[in-house]
Amino acid sequence: MRMSTLFLRTLRDDPAEAEVASHKLLVRAGYIRRAAPGIYTWLPLGLKVLARVEAVVREEMEAIGSQEVHFPALLPREPYEATGRWDEYGDGLFRLQDRKENDYLLAPTHEEMFTLLAKDHFSSYKDLPATLYQIQTKYRDEARPRAGLLRGRAFVMKDSYSFSVDDEGLARAYEAHREAYLRIFERLGLDVVPVAATSGAMGGSRSEEFLHPSPIGEDTYVESPGGYRANVEAVTTVAPEPLSDEAIAALPAPQVKDTAGAETIAALVDVANQVAPRESGTWTAADTLKCVVLTAVLDGGQRRQFVVAVPGDREVDLKRLEASIGAALGVSGEPRLEAATEADLKRHPALVRGYIGPGAGADGERTVLGAEDSVTGLPLFVDPRVAVGTAWITGANADQRHVFGLVAGRDFGWDGVVEATSVIDGDEAPDGSGPLTARRGVEMGHIFQLGRKYAEALGLKVLDANGKQVVVTMGSYGIGVTRALAAIAERYHDEKGLVWPRAVAPADVHVVVAAKGEDAAAYADQLTGELEDAGARVLLDDRAKVSPGVKFKDAELIGVPTSVVVGRGLAEGTVEFKDRATGRAREVPVAQIVDEVRAAVAGSGSDA
Amino acid sequence: MRMSTLFLRTLRDDPAEAEVASHKLLVRAGYIRRAAPGIYTWLPLGLKVLARVEAVVREEMEAIGSQEVHFPALLPREPYEATGRWDEYGDGLFRLQDRKENDYLLAPTHEEMFTLLAKDHFSSYKDLPATLYQIQTKYRDEARPRAGLLRGRAFVMKDSYSFSVDDEGLARAYEAHREAYLRIFERLGLDVVPVAATSGAMGGSRSEEFLHPSPIGEDTYVESPGGYRANVEAVTTVAPEPLSDEAIAALPAPQVKDTAGAETIAALVDVANQVAPRESGTWTAADTLKCVVLTAVLDGGQRRQFVVAVPGDREVDLKRLEASIGAALGVSGEPRLEAATEADLKRHPALVRGYIGPGAGADGERTVLGAEDSVTGLPLFVDPRVAVGTAWITGANADQRHVFGLVAGRDFGWDGVVEATSVIDGDEAPDGSGPLTARRGVEMGHIFQLGRKYAEALGLKVLDANGKQVVVTMGSYGIGVTRALAAIAERYHDEKGLVWPRAVAPADVHVVVAAKGEDAAAYADQLTGELEDAGARVLLDDRAKVSPGVKFKDAELIGVPTSVVVGRGLAEGTVEFKDRATGRAREVPVAQIVDEVRAAVAGSGSDA
Repeated sequence: MRMSTLFLRTLRDDPAEAEVASHKLLVRAGYIRRAAPGIYTWLPLGLKVLARVEAVVREEMEAIGSQEVHFPALLPREPYEATGRWDEYGDGLFRLQDRKENDYLLAPTHEEMFTLLAKDHFSSYKDLPATLYQIQTKYRDEARPRAGLLRGRAFVMKDSYSFSVDDEGLARAYEAHREAYLRIFERLGLDVVPVAATSGAMGGSRSEEFLHPSPIGEDTYVESPGGYRANVEAVTTVAPEPLSDEAIAALPAPQVKDTAGAETIAALVDVANQVAPRESGTWTAADTLKCVVLTAVLDGGQRRQFVVAVPGDREVDLKRLEASIGAALGVSGEPRLEAATEADLKRHPALVRGYIGPGAGADGERTVLGAEDSVTGLPLFVDPRVAVGTAWITGANADQRHVFGLVAGRDFGWDGVVEATSVIDGDEAPDGSGPLTARRGVEMGHIFQLGRKYAEALGLKVLDANGKQVVVTMGSYGIGVTRALAAIAERYHDEKGLVWPRAVAPADVHVVVAAKGEDAAAYADQLTGELEDAGARVLLDDRAKVSPGVKFKDAELIGVPTSVVVGRGLAEGTVEFKDRATGRAREVPVAQIVDEVRAAVAGSGSDA
Repeated sequence: MRMSTLFLRTLRDDPAEAEVASHKLLVRAGYIRRAAPGIYTWLPLGLKVLARVEAVVREEMEAIGSQEVHFPALLPREPYEATGRWDEYGDGLFRLQDRKENDYLLAPTHEEMFTLLAKDHFSSYKDLPATLYQIQTKYRDEARPRAGLLRGRAFVMKDSYSFSVDDEGLARAYEAHREAYLRIFERLGLDVVPVAATSGAMGGSRSEEFLHPSPIGEDTYVESPGGYRANVEAVTTVAPEPLSDEAIAALPAPQVKDTAGAETIAALVDVANQVAPRESGTWTAADTLKCVVLTAVLDGGQRRQFVVAVPGDREVDLKRLEASIGAALGVSGEPRLEAATEADLKRHPALVRGYIGPGAGADGERTVLGAEDSVTGLPLFVDPRVAVGTAWITGANADQRHVFGLVAGRDFGWDGVVEATSVIDGDEAPDGSGPLTARRGVEMGHIFQLGRKYAEALGLKVLDANGKQVVVTMGSYGIGVTRALAAIAERYHDEKGLVWPRAVAPADVHVVVAAKGEDAAAYADQLTGELEDAGARVLLDDRAKVSPGVKFKDAELIGVPTSVVVGRGLAEGTVEFKDRATGRAREVPVAQIVDEVRAAVAGSGSDA
């Protein structure tokens, strides 16, 4: 590659819409260009890096026996209809019609198609296990595409799928992918933390995300000193043991008290300590039960109201609640949650704002909440901490009145238990491995034990060793390839530009002609040839009429790991050997430069 | 690759929808699978061949200094709106909206995006010439996808674009591509004929198609002994010299005659020879003028009626006429043509079915045809053979009456000249190089001198050497990559299966274990290792419990150029060395087999 002809124009200014360093630098250094919101064009340097990242992924996939295929991005509706995902994906799916008005989509992921292909190919347990993969552009109509390649609407993904005859086979395929993923990210120079995750629209049982710790990450995960790690959406709350019937019977009966002015939790705690002081110590927010009215907007637009009850010292975490509310409501997909509006509340006069509780209403007979037999008919879901036998201070469903000592499971029931509250630093890990700490990360990969969901929906069965038809069990495994490239750029840069790790750099060495005259140019040409003969990929800055200062700035922006500067030293038989990461430079005799570069490329050289 | 684990299931039966051999065999041999009409999934063997074809294209593009980029397939409407192609493409474009109801398309080709990218990068003539390319999946909503990969709705294309400061630069870039294309097709083993072509929706001046002669081709081209070659759509008719005004004035006046029963050309010729015998010889169909009423359906659905007049010995060729009628009617795009219906004709009582002519109507004053001042107001277009001064027997616009000696340019005028008739074997080439012969071919590539159409529409200008802003001139060059693969399969197969040329074969050698027992299997494994060490790509049929007969059939179907059969001869130290193309086989001592294969792969071996 010669800079004099390379299709490249570096930019001095950050693109207006860019917020994160990787986005700014990949655009400024001429790797990508924006074509539409969340949709990018790859320029020559960018394509080279992308090909390197893909090659790493491909090698590790082949190493675990996965075979490459390639599905269309444009697909008919029917298979996605059969599994329910045509609707479940909601607005996130690009849908279109062909000239005959048949429905099509741009595939966000290919479980259905792989299942159907497997059905075409497999008939016996002897055909299994098998793993297939593809590297392909996927489409998702993100509501808020952002951060350049980190969250785009068209992105390259490696997706693979395993097919096994039984659960043990699935577990083995899953483990093989898990290890391959760790190797891939290690080769790409990206720290990743595998964390327990929820399965979302994908379905299935076990799943883990590979998160790259980063302050710009959109995911939050927690870890404990004992090694527990999970996406906050997947953290299960440690619930107290339920009390026995006898112990519950022995608890005092609930008492309604005047609590004028106690419309916030803090105010309620104050009032409670005045009107009904605790026998020992004082009431805290953790003793109160907060009932929050919410609306679930389902795929398809229907709105379903419900109430969630959580301890008063916790906030409702809509993202966590979204992950579990679909199952609780008995609907498919992940409904979007909204706070109830004033109008929503007015439709239920029994709900007294600031004094809503799960117990009996103002009529004293029927409860206010609960899907059946309650005044409102609104389903009530509770946080796991609201265990049977726990006693609460909560709204009495009457203006300026609260009830004290309302016992869960005795004085009120519920329609389901949901993970509804935020995880807080210091919460206990569910496996007893100690207190949790929260961190932010970028999701680099996600592996799923899908199980039989897709195989059942699409009829993928094989004969087992006993000649009996069994449904195949599947795994699905994704890596964001373009996102990985962006994460590398995000992790490896400084204020001057990109600093590519060798494994993915667009070139091995950047030769910069910094001296004037034909001798320097001719030598640089000759050196480029020698380096290429030695197997190095060379980017040669041979631009005439461009100052050495501009060339150095461009080299730093582009971020090739090693530079060789052909400058004034050439007259004395030396060139400058420079390391991009450390910025260190030293003069090297021309007779030794090829060996130095070769050692640096092989990773065995001392740095400059 | 080991057949025991390869994701492959060969089929005995042709797929129901397949008409051509390449489609049947690529599906049966497990290279592709249909996902939707005109949309295919690539299986492992198919991907390997596709990668080989792409590599050849990539090498030849790099060799002419073209640099690879990659644009999104999903693009916003605006750039295509600016050039008019959003509408011009009509139903052939896949259109969709995102969640914000912005219009998008799946790109059928990328002129607009390349032009805009060039505008971002180039500011001076010093930045030019430049050539960029991509290899990418394109989308076109074909009305009748057919013949598998030969005419699909999603297909891989290499498209490149040249940017030059002046016409000479464009001519050089065009010539470089022309030569690169000839090299590419030669390496792929495909004969191609570059023929002059029309530019269609692409616009621009000079263009050539690279047609691969094949009986299943959808294009017809003609060639002359003197080397003239053109797509029939682009052939220009040799028109007679127009007569001088004096010569025309000397021609006899037209005479109307009764011609009862002359409703076809053949009948008219008979009747004419009876009612008005020619002075010397007889009247033939070539002396009559046929007026055909047609409807042009424009992009957007409007219907425009017009009449075309052609010599009676010629048929109207709708495909050729479609290529020129848009310009004649002054509309953009390529309107679709339909014969006028009974209802269409009834709207114009002056049109007497079977007796329509371009001259005066029944009222004897105003002409019947012509956009202005005619009775019907229908535009009249004529074939180039209807030159000024030619005299015709044609309809008199009165029942059972024709006019004799109606002189073009004296007795009637027209609104435009169009290429409206079929080219017939024996027609003269327009360059005087002799009589034309028609052949069928598959369009493998198309190169265009676009000129300044896109650069003007999108404002791509640079400063020239005098500091003056000039509009850049562009070329656009496409190769159908997946179509090339299908054409190779079509060209190289026999009744037993595919017969890949070495340059694109999915493997270099197919090792078949045909003897039972561990010795044969162990030797085949060892041989595979040795062949791979020698640089050969090996497909090893190591399937246990599969008969030699089935293995041989699969090998013939898959079509790897060379096979090595490990059979009974192994006990005597020989294996069978087989050539797929000729079917010839001979025993080779195991000590020599690696050298034999290496020589065959290098193309220097004697065949088996």
